Amino acid sequence: MSLIVMKFGGTSVGDIERIKNAAAKVAAEIQRGHKVAVVVSAMSGVTDQLIGYCRAITPRYDQREHDAVVATGEQVTSGLMALALQQRGLNARSWQGWQVGLYTDKAHAKARIVDIDAKALRASIDDFEIGVVAGFQGVTEDERITTLGRGGSDTSAVALAVALQADRCDIYTDVDGVYTADPRIVTAARKMPRVSYEEMLELASLGAKVLQVRSVEMAMRYRMPVQVLSTFANEIGSDLPGTLVTEGNEKMETNTVTGIAHTRDEAKITLVKVADKPGVAAHIFVPLARAGINVDMIVQSASDDGVSTDVSFTVGKADFERALRVLEDEKAAIGYDRLVSVKNVTKISLVGIGMRSHAGVAATMFETLAEKGINIMVIETSEINTSVLIADEYTELALRALHAAYGLDGG
Amino acid sequence: MSLIVMKFGGTSVGDIERIKNAAAKVAAEIQRGHKVAVVVSAMSGVTDQLIGYCRAITPRYDQREHDAVVATGEQVTSGLMALALQQRGLNARSWQGWQVGLYTDKAHAKARIVDIDAKALRASIDDFEIGVVAGFQGVTEDERITTLGRGGSDTSAVALAVALQADRCDIYTDVDGVYTADPRIVTAARKMPRVSYEEMLELASLGAKVLQVRSVEMAMRYRMPVQVLSTFANEIGSDLPGTLVTEGNEKMETNTVTGIAHTRDEAKITLVKVADKPGVAAHIFVPLARAGINVDMIVQSASDDGVSTDVSFTVGKADFERALRVLEDEKAAIGYDRLVSVKNVTKISLVGIGMRSHAGVAATMFETLAEKGINIMVIETSEINTSVLIADEYTELALRALHAAYGLDGG
Repeated sequence: MSLIVMKFGGTSVGDIERIKNAAAKVAAEIQRGHKVAVVVSAMSGVTDQLIGYCRAITPRYDQREHDAVVATGEQVTSGLMALALQQRGLNARSWQGWQVGLYTDKAHAKARIVDIDAKALRASIDDFEIGVVAGFQGVTEDERITTLGRGGSDTSAVALAVALQADRCDIYTDVDGVYTADPRIVTAARKMPRVSYEEMLELASLGAKVLQVRSVEMAMRYRMPVQVLSTFANEIGSDLPGTLVTEGNEKMETNTVTGIAHTRDEAKITLVKVADKPGVAAHIFVPLARAGINVDMIVQSASDDGVSTDVSFTVGKADFERALRVLEDEKAAIGYDRLVSVKNVTKISLVGIGMRSHAGVAATMFETLAEKGINIMVIETSEINTSVLIADEYTELALRALHAAYGLDGG
Repeated sequence: MSLIVMKFGGTSVGDIERIKNAAAKVAAEIQRGHKVAVVVSAMSGVTDQLIGYCRAITPRYDQREHDAVVATGEQVTSGLMALALQQRGLNARSWQGWQVGLYTDKAHAKARIVDIDAKALRASIDDFEIGVVAGFQGVTEDERITTLGRGGSDTSAVALAVALQADRCDIYTDVDGVYTADPRIVTAARKMPRVSYEEMLELASLGAKVLQVRSVEMAMRYRMPVQVLSTFANEIGSDLPGTLVTEGNEKMETNTVTGIAHTRDEAKITLVKVADKPGVAAHIFVPLARAGINVDMIVQSASDDGVSTDVSFTVGKADFERALRVLEDEKAAIGYDRLVSVKNVTKISLVGIGMRSHAGVAATMFETLAEKGINIMVIETSEINTSVLIADEYTELALRALHAAYGLDGG
């Protein structure tokens, strides 16, 4: 008998029928003889509606009250899911963050879990009662309600799996696993049966939306196996496995490139003719950091004349306008000639363990893109990924060509 | 400096604009130098929507999960009200039942308050932070969420006022006080500036919907002054007083009839030719009590022949069909000839302290109704009320005639 944590996201519990469907998935695991804790998100749309109420009162609101309001979304689903399980004759009850003892820090609206006192929940589950935990929420030491920020329910689920010493954490979502590339673009993309924590972390960070980065970090830290699978897969004969995120194994090491991620969330800024002297990088990036703007890919072109150089980097599209203002304000301090920005860019990333140590991996990428006439704006490499920035209009072409070039296409 | 508990019902916090309007009422009390605790209901319609979700899953649901789901309605309003107060530059925070320490018994969905540990809330208010408490909800000793049943927010407010040793509990609603009769029917009805606990309890029990019976009982037990007033009265120059429910005073005793209540919620059942022997009342009313059906006005007509008699009584319209089935099942045991039922009836009640000791009060009622040709079906009297059951179609005529006959019409 295993203990499994099953997490259902917002679309998986989007209405009463879907909650009943999710309850059927839980019932199937109970039928197989497992003990189960369920973690639920708010019904889709509810969180946005609640945030909308707060904003309608005041645009700059107290995050503690925001959390009290927004946490109700998951509370409603937890009660309804418990009812749906009871309706199937199962023993179940709801648990709010404060009832579990899911303690967080006081960073309201983006709180981090500091401790889970899961004794009562574990005792209840051992007594064959399914625990339905409201995801996304916790409580501070002084008993104020907190939320974990966007995607926090994945993190709740993995953290609870760790605290309950569960055997596995299953994340039910609207896709049936992790693919070698976005299957909506690359029709030849294959579902990966297994992927290592390290690769999943890169894929999630680099744009694969299937799992929240924080939840993968936590799974990796505590070596908790996480399975991604679909809530909507056919009930009958549905042991269609999802993707298991777990320890790396030998088979993985033979495939240098495991998958290809992409994101359209970044924009490129180039400072032209920056004085090529010590301290200039600080003059550019310290003011951006002070403004809370994260910078991603950075390249400094080789100086032609030993006097000036060009500096390019990417920022999140949401921060783009603000970054331009900061850089214009700092123009004198930085000392650049002009500023060139491009918003319509896509970052494409090859992900795979040992990429640097395999000669030719990056070369194949550059060749493939060159053959298709795709210009590379910025390149960045690490032990586990190789990323390039290209014009947005080439995204589909580049993804499909690279998928084929690295032998990832399904049979 | 006084401490005032201000309670806002569902229509008073029905949308964002109304929440802001209620916040302005709170700000005005703060301006006058008072300390304030606020108790809020769910935004109108929300509770019914949440109950609808539970019913859509299963018609016979676990009341504990019902409570976890439904309590979110007040939680949302408490957070939004705290934000609306902050937006006015006031210091405020939300409190859920479990955060206050509002302990109830385990009768989920209709829980009764057993203890309020208001120390933390009181300390916060003494520190000039407005406490916004989610009404209608509490927590059991073993930390499950409970709700107090329909109208429970009034009870929350009075109980908190008692626990906080407040000077007054103000109930803001969509009417501006307690009237001598329903002002929608009797245009001459006057708002009463004061009414005693005893009279208010009768008025509430007998159909005046302005305050919940349970909240009046609690106010009476602890002698907590309660004021009923309108949320929607004009802001400027609006010290329009509401109605203060408080100790009886001398002036009251001169008015024998304080007000006239009426209800259309009852239906009449008559058992014709019941054997007139000891034990027959038990044969009728014990089975009804076992079925959870409350019986109100009961009359047994004088026996003509010493052998059989007629027994009439009223039950709530919601229980009517069920009561008929119980009586038909028990026909042999009771031993009656036939059953006559009338659904379209109204109960009209004169309320006033010392009614029995004032000769002629009831006589005036019977005369007035006779003059208008209105037949009385059942009569019931107590120390504090005289009630008659009449055909529904005479309701408006009877109310207006009695209101004038007892000198209640305004100038």
